[in-house]
Amino acid sequence: MKKLNIAQIVSHIGEEVEIRGWVNVIRNHKKIVFLDIRDASGVVQVVGDSSFAQLSPEDVVTIKGLVKKRPEKLINPKLLTGTIEMEAKSFTLLAAAQELPFDMGKEDLGLTLPVLLDYRSLTLRHGKIRSIFKVQETIVTTFRKTMKDAGFTEVQAPTIVATATEGGAEVFPISYFDKKAFLAQSPQFYKQILVSIFEKVFTVAHAYRAEPSVTTRHLTEYVGLDAEMGFIDSWTEVMDMAETLLKNIFKAVKTEHTDILTQYGVEVPKIESSIPRIKLTEAKELIFKRTGRDIRTEPDLDPEGEREMSKWARETHGSDLVFVTHYPTKKRPMYTYPDPENPEETLSFDLIGKGQEWITGGQRINNYEQLVTNIKKWGQDPIHFEIPYLQAFKYGMPPEGGFCLGLERITMNVLGLANIREASLFPRDMERVDIALPKT
Amino acid sequence: MKKLNIAQIVSHIGEEVEIRGWVNVIRNHKKIVFLDIRDASGVVQVVGDSSFAQLSPEDVVTIKGLVKKRPEKLINPKLLTGTIEMEAKSFTLLAAAQELPFDMGKEDLGLTLPVLLDYRSLTLRHGKIRSIFKVQETIVTTFRKTMKDAGFTEVQAPTIVATATEGGAEVFPISYFDKKAFLAQSPQFYKQILVSIFEKVFTVAHAYRAEPSVTTRHLTEYVGLDAEMGFIDSWTEVMDMAETLLKNIFKAVKTEHTDILTQYGVEVPKIESSIPRIKLTEAKELIFKRTGRDIRTEPDLDPEGEREMSKWARETHGSDLVFVTHYPTKKRPMYTYPDPENPEETLSFDLIGKGQEWITGGQRINNYEQLVTNIKKWGQDPIHFEIPYLQAFKYGMPPEGGFCLGLERITMNVLGLANIREASLFPRDMERVDIALPKT
Repeated sequence: MKKLNIAQIVSHIGEEVEIRGWVNVIRNHKKIVFLDIRDASGVVQVVGDSSFAQLSPEDVVTIKGLVKKRPEKLINPKLLTGTIEMEAKSFTLLAAAQELPFDMGKEDLGLTLPVLLDYRSLTLRHGKIRSIFKVQETIVTTFRKTMKDAGFTEVQAPTIVATATEGGAEVFPISYFDKKAFLAQSPQFYKQILVSIFEKVFTVAHAYRAEPSVTTRHLTEYVGLDAEMGFIDSWTEVMDMAETLLKNIFKAVKTEHTDILTQYGVEVPKIESSIPRIKLTEAKELIFKRTGRDIRTEPDLDPEGEREMSKWARETHGSDLVFVTHYPTKKRPMYTYPDPENPEETLSFDLIGKGQEWITGGQRINNYEQLVTNIKKWGQDPIHFEIPYLQAFKYGMPPEGGFCLGLERITMNVLGLANIREASLFPRDMERVDIALPKT
Repeated sequence: MKKLNIAQIVSHIGEEVEIRGWVNVIRNHKKIVFLDIRDASGVVQVVGDSSFAQLSPEDVVTIKGLVKKRPEKLINPKLLTGTIEMEAKSFTLLAAAQELPFDMGKEDLGLTLPVLLDYRSLTLRHGKIRSIFKVQETIVTTFRKTMKDAGFTEVQAPTIVATATEGGAEVFPISYFDKKAFLAQSPQFYKQILVSIFEKVFTVAHAYRAEPSVTTRHLTEYVGLDAEMGFIDSWTEVMDMAETLLKNIFKAVKTEHTDILTQYGVEVPKIESSIPRIKLTEAKELIFKRTGRDIRTEPDLDPEGEREMSKWARETHGSDLVFVTHYPTKKRPMYTYPDPENPEETLSFDLIGKGQEWITGGQRINNYEQLVTNIKKWGQDPIHFEIPYLQAFKYGMPPEGGFCLGLERITMNVLGLANIREASLFPRDMERVDIALPKT
């Protein structure tokens, strides 16, 4: 007898087959029992005799039975297998489930976030929640494919680092035997170094931020999609690469997951031809002209400004996204390349959409002396950057730049999720590492 | 003028092109200067006038010039570009390198390990060293492709964990705000949980071992290639999958990197048809019979025993590798499935080759009560395993098993490297996190 995935049996009408999965829903009509059986590929309706009534939701079973066409009026267009059902002959209970704390059979679980996370190993099984991570897998795969096709080498950057140097966000200290080490805030330094080895590199790397705040947009552990490219003739090549990547991601998600987009009631962001690029100072002028709101003396866009710029991009360029460029030198890390035409500004960009930042990037300083000078200017001691970072520049680094995007952030944005925790299989924040941490 | 990679210019004889790269070697013959220019794709000989004499090793340059065929007797068969040279017209210095601490132009660097690592950002540029990581990239890519082709879903497991529960190797504590957390020793628990979501999963995950010893085979941070599969009918399916993976890896490395294998004077391990499988007790009997050495009362094979088993596999099955199975229950983690025919032994395996362990895996206990009982038997409190691990089993987990291999370990074994540190871009151990840590 053929052992098949549930998605496969649609094309086996009239055959006896074996499926394996979980009891998703069970409806006991006494002499006859209806079960929705779920596996990773889909859900199918199974009709069994009264012996099936002993089963409970989430029991793991194998079921043998006959695949039958459903009568026309009983077709369920919402199900991939809605044109068929399985007439069960027998079942084997592989593992029994305890009584569930809530109904898993609903289209939307409708649980609060703490409950959703307290029962993460269970709630992840729900079709709509699991879908998030199929989209996420597609995003990662498309990132790798796009970068490899463009000649980038995939690298593995370490996450234990000796000093807490990059500044900005707080870092987690580790007890490293009888010494102290830290969790890397990003693979930034390593990807830059590796440009001097492989010219173009990318990495999918876990990164850690110990910012002591609880927001809907931040995790303490996240997955960064990082790329860095050498021998650039212009810093705009970095933006071009980021734009190509995003277009590929949207296309792949749209092609592979139309059903999930529908389930979430969203569409991938629109980019009619290309993503507009506008200097931060011009963006602030534009916001003033369009809304009367004056943020021209602010160093950055506020969320309202980001939303206004998204709106502008959509209206004038048919694009849901916009590159805002030339951020002030003071507001960017010490390695950011100053604009030769105006050293108060940098050759840097943020990609803005739906009032959020999607990607950040830019050109980096590749001259050793300039980098050392900047480190001092930023109030740090170059000795802490010497090995391995500055060493790469001391011995010849080409003009280079790069970008990064947070995997959970982009998953959240694409699916329109309310909270970034929904876009992480096992989210970590200040208050939770699987279990809610004790208050102190 | 065409900007080309060095590997590309071989097919542009008679054309003026531009290349970009590093000065690998410079030989000054006064009126004429020979330079080996290196980029990520290869090395080419460039002939320039005396103006080129101002360049130094590792300077970053662009060079414009004419691609010419070399006279027959000057062809260098060792170089990909050995049939051509470039007659340079002009150059631009993109970044100057400081004087090097050692000669980077030799075929073998011939440095001690501490020097190799003290100058890691420089030594990684060396062709023979960089090659290690091209092989490593191929191994990772082949792992992903093999698993995806077999229907596995790629997942992202967290590395910050709440409790140090898996036992065995020591763990690194993290200061997690005002609480304590730990670095995961492996994604084991998460990949098992995720079987109940996606049935078959894999992950490329950093993992951390705080074992206070310095050996040639261990790192404190390593990259694990982890896979886990549900609904197995027999635990041998896990070995079958591991065997398919290894065969694919060897094939890909051989196909894509013949030159690197030659450079390292090695061949990929031979597997004539399939990898033999032998019970640990039988292996120990065999060693006794073949060598007279009696390790029959030992719980495991020693390195000498592992070498003897590799020898046996080669002689009798034409395989450089051998699966040793049925390790004693006491020596395996608490989640390992006991052999129903002999509960003193487990349905587990190690893949042995060249006197080393390459892969470890087996079937896991999927019954909730049995798992809880075992946790207690192993002297631990199930409460620490409840969320998220045991929760997955409480609500129905199919029969499942999996395996993992260390990326650096397999890279080392395939290339015959003496020390695992050579197979990590930025190796971490008890004494080094980029910089040698201060002795205390």
